[in-house]
Amino acid sequence: MVPQPEFDRLRVVLVATRNALNIGAAARAMSNFGFFNLAVVDPYEPSFREARSAVGALELLACAQEFETVGEAVADCTLVVGTTAVGQREVRHPVKRLEDGARVMRKRLASSRVAILFGSEKFGLSNEDLSHCNWLLRIPTREEHRSMNLGQAVAVCLYELARNPKIATRQEKSGPATAGDIDRVAALLLEALHASGSLKSRSAPRTAEKLRRLMRRHNLTADDAKFWLGMFRQIVWKLSPPK
Amino acid sequence: MVPQPEFDRLRVVLVATRNALNIGAAARAMSNFGFFNLAVVDPYEPSFREARSAVGALELLACAQEFETVGEAVADCTLVVGTTAVGQREVRHPVKRLEDGARVMRKRLASSRVAILFGSEKFGLSNEDLSHCNWLLRIPTREEHRSMNLGQAVAVCLYELARNPKIATRQEKSGPATAGDIDRVAALLLEALHASGSLKSRSAPRTAEKLRRLMRRHNLTADDAKFWLGMFRQIVWKLSPPK
Repeated sequence: MVPQPEFDRLRVVLVATRNALNIGAAARAMSNFGFFNLAVVDPYEPSFREARSAVGALELLACAQEFETVGEAVADCTLVVGTTAVGQREVRHPVKRLEDGARVMRKRLASSRVAILFGSEKFGLSNEDLSHCNWLLRIPTREEHRSMNLGQAVAVCLYELARNPKIATRQEKSGPATAGDIDRVAALLLEALHASGSLKSRSAPRTAEKLRRLMRRHNLTADDAKFWLGMFRQIVWKLSPPK
Repeated sequence: MVPQPEFDRLRVVLVATRNALNIGAAARAMSNFGFFNLAVVDPYEPSFREARSAVGALELLACAQEFETVGEAVADCTLVVGTTAVGQREVRHPVKRLEDGARVMRKRLASSRVAILFGSEKFGLSNEDLSHCNWLLRIPTREEHRSMNLGQAVAVCLYELARNPKIATRQEKSGPATAGDIDRVAALLLEALHASGSLKSRSAPRTAEKLRRLMRRHNLTADDAKFWLGMFRQIVWKLSPPK
């Protein structure tokens, strides 16, 4: 297999991973299939250090970027995909089968950055993590034993992404918005709600999640994001009490 | 995913596996994708015991069959597929890409038993192991980093086999010969060579391998095997010195 230049646009994001062996296994699968852009969010530090200093640790592990939040890790991506072991009924996000989802990701990789998120071994991705995702990817495992080992899940997803070398090169017509753009839109909308007095501080975090999820479903283009930002800025300015 | 009845006909064979974690990981991937027939050949005993007694060890691990030789483990299979990290040029066996190979395996699983072999972490499958294989399967990894972690390789292969639920149900016309049949043909042919005095005892093991490889390439049907066996028996009888 010859790695495609598009593969550099994929960021593999390990969120709150606990086990050093799993971090190492994820990195190995990345190297096997030609993906080198690894990010870790809020890792269990001793494990991350251990994985990095392991004998034969890969260079891509040494070069892994570390982030405190998922939002920062995916800010420059136009498509953020979560992985999940649960079925469609249990989550409010749209879920795609790995095969179908990988096709969409490959298409997007032809022109912009894509992130794929893997949650912690014990809890998977949290609702906060999921609120950064456009949709979720599900490996078609058995109903009775859905949850895969982290390193194996990474390997299967990357295999599916690399499997078919004919990556769609057709550029999408309108440039998609980055995750950072979408977060800014959602944040402004939240501020607007807050300024309008319709947001209770107790429910604010949940509402923020909901908003991000909502905005992501809309598949905003960069132009759309600009438009929304301008509009919400206006609203927030209007709502703010005069000084 | 709903496991297909055909999945029971696949035997996953771990040959000379060293690491308990890898045995456990292979079993987990099997359970994820709905394959339950595990065999181990000449395992490193402490690891096998450890994997079996691990907390949360799967039932399929407890039920795993243990064999001393690859020949015994695959005797009732009509198709034996090895896995390899090396490319076409380095082995004398035909090599298929995972995607293409899995298609052939699925077709065969509709009517008879198939074995997939995974070698030890350090050395892969030996030449002796390979001589039991009809052909080899290669996961399309990067040239510069071909060798996958064992548990991840098992997961990727089983994912590819389970991915497309439309398993071909068309029965093959002529019933294929089992690996046991083919071994018997090869053994008789070897005996014939020996009896004919054309076999040096020093090169006997290598010749045995070569013969098995040769016979497997021929894709014998059960009837073919019967025919060859009858013929070689005759030859051996002719060649043996009168008592």
